[in-house]
Amino acid sequence: MAVERPGEFELIKTYFAPLAHHPGSAGLTDDAAVLEPSPGMDLVLTKDILAADVHFFAEDPPEAIAAKALRVNLSDLAAKGAAARGYLLGIALHRDWTAEWMQRFCCGLSADQAAFDLVLYGGDTIRSGNGLQVSITAIGEVPTNRAVRRSGASNGDALFVSGTIGDAAAGLKVRLDKGFSSRGGFSSAQADHVLNRYLLPQPRTRLAPVVAEYASASMDVSDGLLADAGHLSAASNVDIEIRLDQVPLSPAMHQLRKADFAAFLGCLNGGDDYEILAAVPAEKADAFRLAAEAAQCPVSRIGKVREGSGQVVLLDDGVPVDATGPKGFLHF
Amino acid sequence: MAVERPGEFELIKTYFAPLAHHPGSAGLTDDAAVLEPSPGMDLVLTKDILAADVHFFAEDPPEAIAAKALRVNLSDLAAKGAAARGYLLGIALHRDWTAEWMQRFCCGLSADQAAFDLVLYGGDTIRSGNGLQVSITAIGEVPTNRAVRRSGASNGDALFVSGTIGDAAAGLKVRLDKGFSSRGGFSSAQADHVLNRYLLPQPRTRLAPVVAEYASASMDVSDGLLADAGHLSAASNVDIEIRLDQVPLSPAMHQLRKADFAAFLGCLNGGDDYEILAAVPAEKADAFRLAAEAAQCPVSRIGKVREGSGQVVLLDDGVPVDATGPKGFLHF
Repeated sequence: MAVERPGEFELIKTYFAPLAHHPGSAGLTDDAAVLEPSPGMDLVLTKDILAADVHFFAEDPPEAIAAKALRVNLSDLAAKGAAARGYLLGIALHRDWTAEWMQRFCCGLSADQAAFDLVLYGGDTIRSGNGLQVSITAIGEVPTNRAVRRSGASNGDALFVSGTIGDAAAGLKVRLDKGFSSRGGFSSAQADHVLNRYLLPQPRTRLAPVVAEYASASMDVSDGLLADAGHLSAASNVDIEIRLDQVPLSPAMHQLRKADFAAFLGCLNGGDDYEILAAVPAEKADAFRLAAEAAQCPVSRIGKVREGSGQVVLLDDGVPVDATGPKGFLHF
Repeated sequence: MAVERPGEFELIKTYFAPLAHHPGSAGLTDDAAVLEPSPGMDLVLTKDILAADVHFFAEDPPEAIAAKALRVNLSDLAAKGAAARGYLLGIALHRDWTAEWMQRFCCGLSADQAAFDLVLYGGDTIRSGNGLQVSITAIGEVPTNRAVRRSGASNGDALFVSGTIGDAAAGLKVRLDKGFSSRGGFSSAQADHVLNRYLLPQPRTRLAPVVAEYASASMDVSDGLLADAGHLSAASNVDIEIRLDQVPLSPAMHQLRKADFAAFLGCLNGGDDYEILAAVPAEKADAFRLAAEAAQCPVSRIGKVREGSGQVVLLDDGVPVDATGPKGFLHF
C-alpha cells in the first residue's frame, strides 16, 4: 500500500531533519543555518545542479541519484584540496514522487553523509514543473591560502590523473545504445563496471590533502579529459602534453580501445569521470605519487606542462593523435 | 534582430563573470569559490529556489525575477541579524530563453549586488525540462554567537513587525483575479502599490544589526503573518498574541479591510511579505523601535509573547478573531 505523500513541513520533519545533525541547522526549523568557521581555514564553495534525463536517468535508483548529486560536488571540493564539511540541498520534486521514493533518496544522502563525513545544513524543497532537479551547494575547508586553483600550472610540471578515465562515458553509451557493449566486446563484468562508474561517481576525497600539499594546479574531470585539460591549460596559460599510452584505463576501456578506436577516443573525452587532474612540480612528482598511494587513491603520470597558450597535445607512443572531434560532454 | 544564444562557457564569460568580483571566485573559471571567513564572525547560510509560475510569473520582467530570487534570501539573512556578503546562483534555463532575456536578468542581479553590497561567488547553469528555476544560496555574516533564532522568544517579550503586512498577497490577488482590485475599492495608486510589493520584495537588510542587538527571536514573514507567528511560537514553545488593530497596514490594505474583511484576512495571512517578525524583551522594546527608526526601517509593536505551547491568538480591539481559515501560503 502506498504511503501517503507528506506536505512540505512533514517532508522536512520526517525525511530531511534527521540528516541535519549540525546544531547550527536547528533541525531545519529556522530560516537559515549558522556555522562557526574553523580558525586557520578558508571556505570552499561549489554548486552543481543535476536534472533528470540530463545528468541522470529519472528511473535510476533514488539512492544513486542522491549519491551522484552529492558526489559531483565533493569531487569539485577534493580537486581544490578541500575537505568537505556539509551541504545545502535544493530539490525540485517531480510530479509523481512518492513517500517511498523520498525515503530511498534520503537513505542515499544518509549513507553518503556517513561515508564522506558530511552534514546537511539546510535547503529548500519545491514542486517541479516536470522533472526532478537536485541543486546542491557543498561547503569544504582548506588551510588558509592553500586552495589549489586551475591557474597555477607552470612549464615543466608533471601532469597526473587519478583512477581510470573513460569508464563513465562508456557506461552512458551502454545505457543509451543496446549494441554498444557487444560491439565493444565488453564482458558482462566489464559492462557492469562501466555502468556502475556512470551511475555512482567515486569522488577522490582522500586525495584532497595530497592535492593541497603538492599540486600547483588541479581540477576534476567532468567534461572530458581533453576538454578539461584545455580548461586547465587556458587558466594557467600553458600548453599541456598528454601521453595517451600513459592514460590509466580499466580493462573495459582497454578492450574498447582494441575493438573501436574512435568510440574509445569518444569515451576517453566523454566526461563524468570525476577523477582529479593535477599538475605537480617535477621535483615533487614522486612524493605526490607516493602520498596518493598512501591515501589509497593512486594516480598516474600522463604527461607534462609546457610553455604555451592553452593548447592540449595528445601523443600516442610519441605520435600526435587528432582528437579534435570529441570536444567533451557539454552538460548544458 | 535577435542576438545569438550563447553556449554555456560563453554564457558564463559574457553574463555571469562580470558579476563575480570577489578574487576567490577566479572570474568563475574554477571548480569552486574560495573565501576567507572574517575573524569573529559566524556564517549564515540560506537557500531558496524560485520556480516560474509557482513563485513568480514567467512573463515578469527578468530584472524583477532576478531581484526577487536574491531578495527572498536576503530577507532570511536579515531576520537572523546577518549582513549579506554574497551568493551562489543556480539557474535552470527555460527552453525559450534569449540573450536579451539573460542580459536583463543579469542587469537585475547587478543592480541588487550594488544595492545590497553583494558579490556572486559561483554557481551552475543547466537546461530546464520546461520552466525557469532560480536556486540561490546566500551567505551572510553575524558576530559569533549573535545569530537570532526563531526559538529564543520568552514570556513577556514584545512582538514587532517591520513595514506593512498583506500587500504582496493583495498584489498576487490583483494579478490572478481581474475583479479583485475594483471589488476591494483600490485606487489605481493602491493597485500599483500592491502589485509592486508582490513583484519586488524589500528585504529589511538595514534592520539586521538592530535585530542582532535587541531581538530574542526573529524570522521573516514569507508564509503569512499568522502562519509564521505560529512557527516562531512553536520553535520558542510560547504562545503569541497579535493585536490586529496594531498590525501595520498600507492605505490599500486599510481600504481592503473596509471593503471585504474576509479577503483582507486572507491577504493579511497570504505571505510573500518579507517583513521581519521579531520578539524583543519588554525592557528593550523602546530602544529596539528607536534603533529601527534610526536604521530607516520602522517597526510596529503588534503583540506580545505569553506562556504557552505554540498557539497564536489574534485579537481585534480586544475581541478574538477566528482566523483559522487562511493558514498561510504553502509555497510547496
